[in-house]
Amino acid sequence: MAIKWLSEKYRAQVVTVTVDVGQEENFSEIEKRAYIAGAEKHYTIDAKEEFANSFVAPSIMMNALYEGVYPLSTALARPLIAEKVVEVAKKEGATHVAHGSTSKGNDQVRFDLAIKSKMPEAEIVAPARTWGMTRQQEVLYAKEKGIPIKEENKKFSIDENLWGRSIEGDTISDPYAEVPEEAFEWTKVTSTEPLEIELEFKEGVPITINGKRSSLLEIVRYLNREAGARGFGRVDHLENRLVGFKSREVYEVPAALLIYSAHQDLEKAVYTPLELRFKRYVDQLWSDLVYRGLWYEPLRSLLDEVGRSMNKYVEGVVKLRVKGGGVNVLGRRAKYSPYAENVASYERGWYPTDEMARGFIEIWGMHSLLANRSRA
Amino acid sequence: MAIKWLSEKYRAQVVTVTVDVGQEENFSEIEKRAYIAGAEKHYTIDAKEEFANSFVAPSIMMNALYEGVYPLSTALARPLIAEKVVEVAKKEGATHVAHGSTSKGNDQVRFDLAIKSKMPEAEIVAPARTWGMTRQQEVLYAKEKGIPIKEENKKFSIDENLWGRSIEGDTISDPYAEVPEEAFEWTKVTSTEPLEIELEFKEGVPITINGKRSSLLEIVRYLNREAGARGFGRVDHLENRLVGFKSREVYEVPAALLIYSAHQDLEKAVYTPLELRFKRYVDQLWSDLVYRGLWYEPLRSLLDEVGRSMNKYVEGVVKLRVKGGGVNVLGRRAKYSPYAENVASYERGWYPTDEMARGFIEIWGMHSLLANRSRA
Amino acid sequence: MAIKWLSEKYRAQVVTVTVDVGQEENFSEIEKRAYIAGAEKHYTIDAKEEFANSFVAPSIMMNALYEGVYPLSTALARPLIAEKVVEVAKKEGATHVAHGSTSKGNDQVRFDLAIKSKMPEAEIVAPARTWGMTRQQEVLYAKEKGIPIKEENKKFSIDENLWGRSIEGDTISDPYAEVPEEAFEWTKVTSTEPLEIELEFKEGVPITINGKRSSLLEIVRYLNREAGARGFGRVDHLENRLVGFKSREVYEVPAALLIYSAHQDLEKAVYTPLELRFKRYVDQLWSDLVYRGLWYEPLRSLLDEVGRSMNKYVEGVVKLRVKGGGVNVLGRRAKYSPYAENVASYERGWYPTDEMARGFIEIWGMHSLLANRSRA
Amino acid sequence: MAIKWLSEKYRAQVVTVTVDVGQEENFSEIEKRAYIAGAEKHYTIDAKEEFANSFVAPSIMMNALYEGVYPLSTALARPLIAEKVVEVAKKEGATHVAHGSTSKGNDQVRFDLAIKSKMPEAEIVAPARTWGMTRQQEVLYAKEKGIPIKEENKKFSIDENLWGRSIEGDTISDPYAEVPEEAFEWTKVTSTEPLEIELEFKEGVPITINGKRSSLLEIVRYLNREAGARGFGRVDHLENRLVGFKSREVYEVPAALLIYSAHQDLEKAVYTPLELRFKRYVDQLWSDLVYRGLWYEPLRSLLDEVGRSMNKYVEGVVKLRVKGGGVNVLGRRAKYSPYAENVASYERGWYPTDEMARGFIEIWGMHSLLANRSRA
Repeated sequence: MAIKWLSEKYRAQVVTVTVDVGQEENFSEIEKRAYIAGAEKHYTIDAKEEFANSFVAPSIMMNALYEGVYPLSTALARPLIAEKVVEVAKKEGATHVAHGSTSKGNDQVRFDLAIKSKMPEAEIVAPARTWGMTRQQEVLYAKEKGIPIKEENKKFSIDENLWGRSIEGDTISDPYAEVPEEAFEWTKVTSTEPLEIELEFKEGVPITINGKRSSLLEIVRYLNREAGARGFGRVDHLENRLVGFKSREVYEVPAALLIYSAHQDLEKAVYTPLELRFKRYVDQLWSDLVYRGLWYEPLRSLLDEVGRSMNKYVEGVVKLRVKGGGVNVLGRRAKYSPYAENVASYERGWYPTDEMARGFIEIWGMHSLLANRSRA
Repeated sequence: MAIKWLSEKYRAQVVTVTVDVGQEENFSEIEKRAYIAGAEKHYTIDAKEEFANSFVAPSIMMNALYEGVYPLSTALARPLIAEKVVEVAKKEGATHVAHGSTSKGNDQVRFDLAIKSKMPEAEIVAPARTWGMTRQQEVLYAKEKGIPIKEENKKFSIDENLWGRSIEGDTISDPYAEVPEEAFEWTKVTSTEPLEIELEFKEGVPITINGKRSSLLEIVRYLNREAGARGFGRVDHLENRLVGFKSREVYEVPAALLIYSAHQDLEKAVYTPLELRFKRYVDQLWSDLVYRGLWYEPLRSLLDEVGRSMNKYVEGVVKLRVKGGGVNVLGRRAKYSPYAENVASYERGWYPTDEMARGFIEIWGMHSLLANRSRA
Repeated sequence: MAIKWLSEKYRAQVVTVTVDVGQEENFSEIEKRAYIAGAEKHYTIDAKEEFANSFVAPSIMMNALYEGVYPLSTALARPLIAEKVVEVAKKEGATHVAHGSTSKGNDQVRFDLAIKSKMPEAEIVAPARTWGMTRQQEVLYAKEKGIPIKEENKKFSIDENLWGRSIEGDTISDPYAEVPEEAFEWTKVTSTEPLEIELEFKEGVPITINGKRSSLLEIVRYLNREAGARGFGRVDHLENRLVGFKSREVYEVPAALLIYSAHQDLEKAVYTPLELRFKRYVDQLWSDLVYRGLWYEPLRSLLDEVGRSMNKYVEGVVKLRVKGGGVNVLGRRAKYSPYAENVASYERGWYPTDEMARGFIEIWGMHSLLANRSRA
Repeated sequence: MAIKWLSEKYRAQVVTVTVDVGQEENFSEIEKRAYIAGAEKHYTIDAKEEFANSFVAPSIMMNALYEGVYPLSTALARPLIAEKVVEVAKKEGATHVAHGSTSKGNDQVRFDLAIKSKMPEAEIVAPARTWGMTRQQEVLYAKEKGIPIKEENKKFSIDENLWGRSIEGDTISDPYAEVPEEAFEWTKVTSTEPLEIELEFKEGVPITINGKRSSLLEIVRYLNREAGARGFGRVDHLENRLVGFKSREVYEVPAALLIYSAHQDLEKAVYTPLELRFKRYVDQLWSDLVYRGLWYEPLRSLLDEVGRSMNKYVEGVVKLRVKGGGVNVLGRRAKYSPYAENVASYERGWYPTDEMARGFIEIWGMHSLLANRSRA
């Protein structure tokens, strides 16, 4: 639709790009629609592996959850999509780069800043930001111009990629009303059998699943399918948008939530308490940067370094069970864990003397008790 | 057992105190055992309501989860138990106060500091810290002295109260081995029916459940029973003990996890992004203080004030569903939420112009982009 | 000048307001100029005491230093000025509220958000943002219209109030070039004699100086004059503006820096280590909020509460000496300090035994050493 | 003195080690005293360059100031001294390692943990911790055994190295009483002439001073001497000791304070606002770890990596003036600064339109204003 509008408004030759980041789509259908709408040329770029290895992998190292619940699926894909589009733009000698975001969403920030960063000379056009149509008016415009629109768009606004499926839209905008079952696709219950998983990590990233060496892409797909089939992986919250307001957002993210659970558990088996608290702080910072379109902020790269460094020792296996919408960590074996049974045991090993323990406790609590006394 | 030891070792008249903080116990049985073991006098103090209202309630306001998973059940009860014991000690004119912790646990820190704080003149005696017996040796000693010991103690070390049940011990000390089903009591699956809950909060604390006004004590008990019956509420992790090492800890905490989910969701519906991040920071600080025996640190009281202040507007209803070990938040109605359908809607309401949006994005990303350029 | 422009452009009846927040100005001169420029009515509002007590006082409690050096003088005054202007606007039945900020400064954010907050129905007009004149062009415009302009404006852009004097402008825009002496007014050396100060605080705010009970306004003025006369109080840094870029900013802030030194010292005498770190975190958050125009963010009010609460025990006297551009804290007497000579003394009092000390050290370092071993 | 005691108590052959970390001492005198006291063998190890390059340099990158004021001079040297002692111990086949700290100081923690880390098999002996003598009794014991003691020890307890001189002791233990001038050595005023300095940094560490390429060791010594001669570099505060209580501590640290001022200024010229805030957080964490004896905590090494990474672009020159106890930063030239005169200028360059600015402001403040409205 934007294609039509662009070619009419700017008298531009429009080159369209679809980036495959793992969404379930009929890419040849999209291509067909692009040409119908007036594209001069269409690119379909398979970026699934790159998305998995360069965007999903660091987000695993960072346990990236925006506001504690959202694994950033859409936010993570935006810089990659923009980079691919910019590559095409440069190859095609384009002067303008367009994207489909509106003026009230987060994605415009992510796209604009990615483009500014990678191709500062380009002029950015965001038709949906300029034309000022509501979603309803857009549907009308599309009809009028004879542009086919996917059915689901009528009820929900969906964004999907390897790392998650997000659902928003006016039909679920009452934050108290339960989201209708039909909105979900990845987490429909089709199996009541518990799902047992052994996930092996190396340097913070999964490398085998139930003993089978697999690419991250394969592991994520497997977990989305299998954990999703147990109804696991739904998120529903009021999200603080970058662009000033709260929005009700719903996600289907089975693989992400599972892998984070396992990864966090393994980190905890390895890190000192001081490392753990620092890492959680870094995790949150990173998530905020990525959500807020600041993929190109230097601090993001620095935190990536921190993430890699701190994941160097995150190696081992985590056992989990998914059952009826919940996951439990059942055990973990961490290669570099300071856990020592002979230290921790109640039967054997390390026991400080009474006096040593008293010494610790006295000094540990002393500042607090002296302060209380002085204020009494 | 400690009673025997104390009366033998110190030739002391031992007064024993059991504080009921919601654990499933036969208190008259305990009393009987105390007299058999040689207690001069025994007190059973019902502190359930106080525990719920003065310890559990603030922990709800603080979403208190140590290292992201443990709702502090044992840690929260220790200061209260110590305070009750100190009350008795003062009443009885005691010079010494004893507790049962060992020299390698967290609880000794919590008890010692509570006693030092409330009764600095008392001498603290911790028999298990002094006598240097392993758990096995303790069992032998008890047998020899004819002191009955609860069966379960042989396999697991259990601590239980209203807010949770904790399981530890050498039989589960291999962190990779799955905890045997027999270790669990609260979360055995006895119902496959989904549990629907509407939890109403006022000033950050639940006041009705499914429309029925109830005390916090009742609500917690109901949720432990009903969510536990769905197998919900298990936690298994390697915990960073205050006393220097990692320990495998397992918890059954259905009500705590449920209420925190609901409470956090409601907070997010109310807080600005800045408030939310500050609150999560405070939440973590508070949890660390309480876990680490610093209930009497002045900062804990200050953070409590912050918690109360920030929960003033946390009012409304959260809908949840517990199903097969998992919980989903389904919706929320928050009285003081800045969420505004007409702002958030894709159809109506607030839309910045293209130029306004561009202005925001340019300024928002400017520092980052300028920095990248200067380092290229 | 904006007056002229407003009355010409909008055919508006312009009511002008000057708020006295302690700047050295000839207010009747300003009034005269306002009428010459075409104002219908002019208000001069004395807000000095309110500025001192409601804006400077909390900033003292918060040791408010943006990026470690800037005491927020201008930033603090903006909300107050805006509130006074809005009061007049409401009284006069105005529909528009104007301010003089440009489109690249921080102040527009502070003014706009203050006005939106206090008078959401008002339309905001910022002539300098609209007309698109450079400072040079403005000078020309003013000349043309016969509007007198203060001399100094030609070289530096000055903003001044009770809490500080800020200097910026193109003549100092080379961040390596030393700022010429003529730019400074408050910190010209006129005395080489050391300045001895005893500052007494109650609830975190100065109440006497060298034993003499004085209002905060008086104390600030005294310190600006006397410490300034020793050349104390200059700040020069590259500041991260809210509006996306770095700017070279120079400040004269003798009283602010002095009072903060004393206040921080006193806080440290009172707080536990945990309180101190939390407070410094809060200090920084508060400073960022205020600098960034978020005076009306709910978190700011919450942090104010925290500030008041944590300053309740900040009471006592601090001795300082200002000498040749530097300040030294010489001593402090804090009413509620946990400092205890008999604990701290090397001769007397508290000494843990060797075993107690060893116990503390072993447990204190244990997590770290175990982790090192497991990664070796 | 400890030598005598050790050889008497343990019948040990005592090997003594003095590590030269830049303190002003007569090392051959120390050696002589060691032999008199009964040492079998004495080592004097020159570790000045290593101290400068491996301990002082990272502390510069970290702007390491404990509780905002203390540059960690003593704390930094402890791990190095311990490592040197351990090297000798291993070479000499020693089974015990001794140090001179008492049971109430911070240094015992630093020494013990360093030794445990580098030579876990060694038994640690801390005579002053074991013998239980007060400082007065020690002086008596020394006299009795004919061991010479340095004069100054009678009034103050001094620790000195390249990075600072610390003064403590009972004569200054009244925190309100001004420290007598005789306590100071490095910061006696001997020059009233302003000191002009141009300090050039590369990767966060000074490499030239006033244009002259110098080692860090030379630069620090020069600044200590020259800035000290202007009376610059005194610190006086109530310090939160690791070991549970507050202590009045006084430091002479001219070079450290000067270099930190310059370094922080340069960092601010380079970092984005997000980097700056993160770095200051890291700075504080690092300082706390080092102060608290956790040099061997894995997080310390990680933060060192962060420090090096973030200092990669901290390159350029800072101009400062020291005058009568104060320092002013006068200008800076940073190679990788995003500062751009044409962006920052009030005359030229970047100006957003009125609408763009409004867009930014509206979105920037929106969450806060919506929240206020919903709570009204």
